[in-house]
Amino acid sequence: MSDTTNLRIPGPTPLPASVREAGSRPMVNHRGPEFKALLGRVTAGLQRGFRTSNDVLLLTASGTGGLEAMVVNFLSPGDQVLSVSTGVFGDRLASIARSYGVTVAKYAVEWGQAADPAVVGDRLRTLAEAGTPATAVFVTHNETSTGVTNPLQAIAATIHATAPTALIIVDGISGVGAVPFATDAWGLDVVATGSQKSWMVPPGLAMVSVSDRAWAAHQTASIPRYYFDLKRARDAAANGETPWTPAVSICFALDAALALIDAEGYDAIFARHAAVAAATRAGLAAMGFRLFADPAHASDTVTSACVPAGVEWSKLSTELRGRGLVLAGGQGALTGRIFRVGHLGDVHLDDILRALETLEAGAVAQRVPIVQGVAIEAARQAAAAAGPLGPVLAAAGATA
Amino acid sequence: MSDTTNLRIPGPTPLPASVREAGSRPMVNHRGPEFKALLGRVTAGLQRGFRTSNDVLLLTASGTGGLEAMVVNFLSPGDQVLSVSTGVFGDRLASIARSYGVTVAKYAVEWGQAADPAVVGDRLRTLAEAGTPATAVFVTHNETSTGVTNPLQAIAATIHATAPTALIIVDGISGVGAVPFATDAWGLDVVATGSQKSWMVPPGLAMVSVSDRAWAAHQTASIPRYYFDLKRARDAAANGETPWTPAVSICFALDAALALIDAEGYDAIFARHAAVAAATRAGLAAMGFRLFADPAHASDTVTSACVPAGVEWSKLSTELRGRGLVLAGGQGALTGRIFRVGHLGDVHLDDILRALETLEAGAVAQRVPIVQGVAIEAARQAAAAAGPLGPVLAAAGATA
Repeated sequence: MSDTTNLRIPGPTPLPASVREAGSRPMVNHRGPEFKALLGRVTAGLQRGFRTSNDVLLLTASGTGGLEAMVVNFLSPGDQVLSVSTGVFGDRLASIARSYGVTVAKYAVEWGQAADPAVVGDRLRTLAEAGTPATAVFVTHNETSTGVTNPLQAIAATIHATAPTALIIVDGISGVGAVPFATDAWGLDVVATGSQKSWMVPPGLAMVSVSDRAWAAHQTASIPRYYFDLKRARDAAANGETPWTPAVSICFALDAALALIDAEGYDAIFARHAAVAAATRAGLAAMGFRLFADPAHASDTVTSACVPAGVEWSKLSTELRGRGLVLAGGQGALTGRIFRVGHLGDVHLDDILRALETLEAGAVAQRVPIVQGVAIEAARQAAAAAGPLGPVLAAAGATA
Repeated sequence: MSDTTNLRIPGPTPLPASVREAGSRPMVNHRGPEFKALLGRVTAGLQRGFRTSNDVLLLTASGTGGLEAMVVNFLSPGDQVLSVSTGVFGDRLASIARSYGVTVAKYAVEWGQAADPAVVGDRLRTLAEAGTPATAVFVTHNETSTGVTNPLQAIAATIHATAPTALIIVDGISGVGAVPFATDAWGLDVVATGSQKSWMVPPGLAMVSVSDRAWAAHQTASIPRYYFDLKRARDAAANGETPWTPAVSICFALDAALALIDAEGYDAIFARHAAVAAATRAGLAAMGFRLFADPAHASDTVTSACVPAGVEWSKLSTELRGRGLVLAGGQGALTGRIFRVGHLGDVHLDDILRALETLEAGAVAQRVPIVQGVAIEAARQAAAAAGPLGPVLAAAGATA
């Protein structure tokens, strides 16, 4: 794939040049002073991104490894949890827990919709009344498979009010760092994210924050664990190391990416994501694609749209790929029914405008019935209306 | 760390230029055609390296994740295994198994020595006579912590003869690809290695081969697993994918490294490792350092030597680091007692000669009593005596 390919999937995301350069640096001793300094910088940078003073630990793993770490470190077989599931990744977290003997009550939300905080409260009360109070609640912050962002702050407030001892365990993989998020202010005990999402880094690192309350639970949690034992990671981190050889090149890349992030600032980053997301939704809608996610909870990092009736997604996808645009299809039950446009990390308005242009041309070539000639202007207007643009976004818009 | 640092630890190893370049390529869709083609190439290349027609599966993890996968996929709580341990990594494999409820009988070999195939046979007979026959035997091929290579072929033959139904589960992390190894010919059921060792790639990928016999065991093995479930990896691989987002940049790097490996050829690679190892041992011994590993089983990928009495390793290590040479200290009970010189992957005679020169100068500066002025010649002679040099090695020697 060339530099000019427009990779618009919800991770891995395109890499800034300085991140790619950093990822190609010569190896160092992962038990030496350079790595120790790097681990300190990266941890502090992630704490700023998570808005937390909790420990943030690096695991060499995919995001799913981060999800597994969230389960095996804080629960015991037979524990009752409430799993708020709004799609493939919510289901995955529930499946992991069941694999380790946890009893899972699932609040399964219709795909494309967001979880309702009031229902979360009802389910927690029902579990408590049945004599099986939830020891933890799983929540997906941003459901990548449907393009829905759950109202996590309100859900967390409900959990604190209804089941104050329950740990709040959050899949933050495709949201943290790109949209407003406040681990400590919202009282989130465990949060995981992945390097290939808003962090603009290749996949291979999962990052997990752990509250004091969660560490207390760790002491009695009896699910067996070794590689993903976060206590081992904490002990090693106190010495500037990881317990097992870390993905050094991806740590280099993360260090470089966090420097870019700090330079831009989270307010500007959030505004940029809101603007490109608004542009994406407006452009797709103007072309006549039906948006899949509830508009009130549409994600600012990934947009899902329905594949029009009679259209074979795999054919359209191949057409677009030939034109330099890579989109994501649907997952699980949504395969062939929706497609997804990723817009997180190093994404700017011109990337979205290019994507809309290519999608329009590819759809026409494949005789997909769409409205032509209106998407770009709709996208520009939506981006402008989304709020004050950061300097990077404004510059990108001006050159598009 | 600069390009000119001589990183002589047993992984991460220095990266060839083409590997670094490949690792910095733009991201691709890990569910798209480029990655599918890459996964096919890499898998075939690893099968050549392992000398196997078994499945070889990629895990996004440190080597220890590969060890965990070897335990959780093929065993059940309460299973009896024999663990042949010759150092830190043998102990680690036993610890992982115990964490998951496996009953471990350990054949603990004195550190610095190799396991004796006859003792392995005795232990297996003892277990069988006690009514607790081993369902599996763990063997570390090359014990990185002591610099010892176990006689794996003979050990495997003994296991086949004594306990023919026991699975042979091998930590091949720091040996496969650098020294002669034959998964199928030796009848090894499960073998794990790691990207940052002989493969000349950054850390972040573990690669595990699985025999038909092991797959049969997988069907009834009841240790809980999810992220490291190799069946999920096999099912995804059949579709040209990994179950979870893979470490794409490290896969790119591995693809480039395997191209270099195939171009050099394994016979030449093995000869090169034998020669640089012989040079390392001869040079250290000539300087007066006592070699730690039994000479009959000294590793061709890492050499261990004793820290002379009265010398503080951390001080000498810092001195050497200041002179551009990074060596590894001892691990576990060997901390401060030995140091280790890594010589695997992209290593040539001049790298070893440079390391010896720096070590000599640094030792003199730190008033470590050594024999001066003889190491380089001893190393050159040992390399030449080790056998016919490959063209790369010969060229490196000529320019040193």
